[in-house]
Amino acid sequence: MTTSSDLFLTPGSRSHQRCASCGATLPELDASPACPTCGGLLEIVHGAPTLDAASLRASFAQNCCARPLGSASGVWRFESLVMPGAGSSIVSHPEGNTPLLTRAAIDRFAGLDGLRIKHEGHNPTGSFKDRGMTVGVTQAVRLGASAVACASTGNTSAALASYAAQAGIPGLVFVPAGKIAMGKLAQTLGYGARTLMVRGDFDDCLRLVQDAARELGIYLLNSINPWRVEGQKTIVLEMLQQLDWQAPDFIVLPAGNLGNTAAFGKALREAKALGLIDKMPRIVSVQAAGAAPFARAFRENFATRYSVQADTIATAIRIGDPASWDRAVRSIRETDGIVLSCSDDEIIAAKVAIDAAGVGCEPASAASVAGVRRLVQDGVITSSHRVVAVLTGHILKDPGILVDLHQGEQFAGANKPIEIDADVRAVERVLAESAHSEGAR
Amino acid sequence: MTTSSDLFLTPGSRSHQRCASCGATLPELDASPACPTCGGLLEIVHGAPTLDAASLRASFAQNCCARPLGSASGVWRFESLVMPGAGSSIVSHPEGNTPLLTRAAIDRFAGLDGLRIKHEGHNPTGSFKDRGMTVGVTQAVRLGASAVACASTGNTSAALASYAAQAGIPGLVFVPAGKIAMGKLAQTLGYGARTLMVRGDFDDCLRLVQDAARELGIYLLNSINPWRVEGQKTIVLEMLQQLDWQAPDFIVLPAGNLGNTAAFGKALREAKALGLIDKMPRIVSVQAAGAAPFARAFRENFATRYSVQADTIATAIRIGDPASWDRAVRSIRETDGIVLSCSDDEIIAAKVAIDAAGVGCEPASAASVAGVRRLVQDGVITSSHRVVAVLTGHILKDPGILVDLHQGEQFAGANKPIEIDADVRAVERVLAESAHSEGAR
Repeated sequence: MTTSSDLFLTPGSRSHQRCASCGATLPELDASPACPTCGGLLEIVHGAPTLDAASLRASFAQNCCARPLGSASGVWRFESLVMPGAGSSIVSHPEGNTPLLTRAAIDRFAGLDGLRIKHEGHNPTGSFKDRGMTVGVTQAVRLGASAVACASTGNTSAALASYAAQAGIPGLVFVPAGKIAMGKLAQTLGYGARTLMVRGDFDDCLRLVQDAARELGIYLLNSINPWRVEGQKTIVLEMLQQLDWQAPDFIVLPAGNLGNTAAFGKALREAKALGLIDKMPRIVSVQAAGAAPFARAFRENFATRYSVQADTIATAIRIGDPASWDRAVRSIRETDGIVLSCSDDEIIAAKVAIDAAGVGCEPASAASVAGVRRLVQDGVITSSHRVVAVLTGHILKDPGILVDLHQGEQFAGANKPIEIDADVRAVERVLAESAHSEGAR
Repeated sequence: MTTSSDLFLTPGSRSHQRCASCGATLPELDASPACPTCGGLLEIVHGAPTLDAASLRASFAQNCCARPLGSASGVWRFESLVMPGAGSSIVSHPEGNTPLLTRAAIDRFAGLDGLRIKHEGHNPTGSFKDRGMTVGVTQAVRLGASAVACASTGNTSAALASYAAQAGIPGLVFVPAGKIAMGKLAQTLGYGARTLMVRGDFDDCLRLVQDAARELGIYLLNSINPWRVEGQKTIVLEMLQQLDWQAPDFIVLPAGNLGNTAAFGKALREAKALGLIDKMPRIVSVQAAGAAPFARAFRENFATRYSVQADTIATAIRIGDPASWDRAVRSIRETDGIVLSCSDDEIIAAKVAIDAAGVGCEPASAASVAGVRRLVQDGVITSSHRVVAVLTGHILKDPGILVDLHQGEQFAGANKPIEIDADVRAVERVLAESAHSEGAR
């Protein structure tokens, strides 16, 4: 069993960074994007909290109210487990405080009563990325970085842009020239990040951003940044707090780059070691079938690290070579976890059900509920299990797909507008049909 | 001075509805969309709370924490002032709990230090409409309504659809056939509301929805529904709570249909009468210049009720004949309020500044900050004043305008992508220019 002393430094120690591959340690304020010795992924190790589990829980509860003069953050409430030395450098929107929902209509779809939905789309920029970015940009402030940068065109760049703007640090987004649909960057441009369209391919882009980090004091907030992992841990910590620290049996999440799979494992490992929870939930990572190298590896006990040409409608998890692979393997192993893949049809069916429950989500988010449904059908999840499914993005993150689904010709479940005469009997017929289709569900 | 006894029924009384024009009263559970006697606007009158101001404040604070098993609502925390008998009928996402922000970059734009931003875009469906709809749909449940309906294509219909879905009641949206860009309804369709495209014009549509309400037990949740007003009051109540009940000098908001101007006045009137606040803030309603009948009437002391052909880029306040006119006049009069109009250019400049601060908002929302800037320039608001500006919708509510602004040719302040060679010196130049333009602001 993992104990607190394996995971934390002695109480009162400053946090440091450690290479997960070779064990080399770096100071907390070193800006290296990876281990300078071996190139491995860095992780953060904190000093053990000086409070016992009960006192820690109480301190989290105390920070949990909407305080006068501004709501508390759902990330920084857990500062002692995320970045104990952050103090006055904190750049917070605030973020987190996302709801834990239940909806009868989603239960019916998944085939499980009381399925809890942790909706990370209710973060300021509309996705869970804010939880990592508040910590990553705070680290940039502590480092005195000249700018922050990433190479994403999606939710990551929007979150980076928002927090960089708040910190008053330039935000830079590196993309290969001519290969990106600029509409995807609209939110990022609005928040004022500079988009650098690099003449070259994606590899040139990555090389350039790393050179720039080394030579120009730009702090890299790419997906393997260990401080972003620390922020994303709070999805689990906040969920556990909302469950009054009664750990669920399963935590199910969409899986692309595997950053959340990594972060969730670290959060659970630490929470268990600190006595915040008594048992370990099983992590279930759900990939899209067209982007499922991790699911394939899982079936072979992670003997091989695969990469694929990714192809799925769920753009936020359309990733063929996940960056946080090793960390994620550890998460699955240590939690007796499961990795599976769902088809785009299964993911869309789940999205339509989540939307029509009045909740709504980005397409990739729905992979978690699609995964729950599958595991219920397979008998792995039963009615006695307590299950949390995580939605990672807001329905407004991809409104285009709504138009395609509901106003196009292809989709059988389309909610099409109904043309009627200005006659109350016509309305009556629509109501009768609605009651019928509701009953048929 | 208005006292508690003018505004509230005797303690313990059931709430009822009262016509603001003729004074007729209706039972709480009457579903009439307007006064059956004279057609006037209905308003809700509650029994006076049995708690004194200090105890009321304490009860709000107690309900304010994120509780185990789900966050508390920022509307239903104030249940005693919103719908005291709601009890188990409540349909809550939950909503509210929106942040009260300050941002140095917005202060610089507005010319006022410490401007507070109440961001209602951080409601579940992305706009303040959720606060009214949680109450309106709860009322529909109490009434046993067969369906809920409205005739909006924007934020109202999205909120209606979301809450109707959660309640398991059909949501109906009435629009004139062939006159609506269906993309505007994407979010509404996703949440499962039935869109009825009525063969006829907008007047046929309104007549039909009213006939349907009378004959089919459909509950109308149009903009004059008095329960929606009760829900929207909580924008002010929550803001006052976040300010520790120290009322600001000005509350500035975008004004189209005038529902919020009406609701804010009622909230302040009641809060003052109950002793929750000591002084009355001045309400500042900001219209778009192309849709400013209320601003024109204000300059003439409301002698005339105007209507205009509305034309503005701020679609959420593009309304020529505001429905909540009379209620809003009362709000402005009773709070020594101000009504002004800002040009589309002023509104866009404010939106760009709010976006680039990393906060972001729907275009119409920015009218409030544009209004603050104007009143600072005019010397009405000075550095000694405490001011709250309300943003009503999320930046993701209108991503199209971001593409137009930042990737088109017209807009001088566009944040255009920069094409560079894969060379670290090129990055250095961009950083130098960013530092320069930041300094120049």
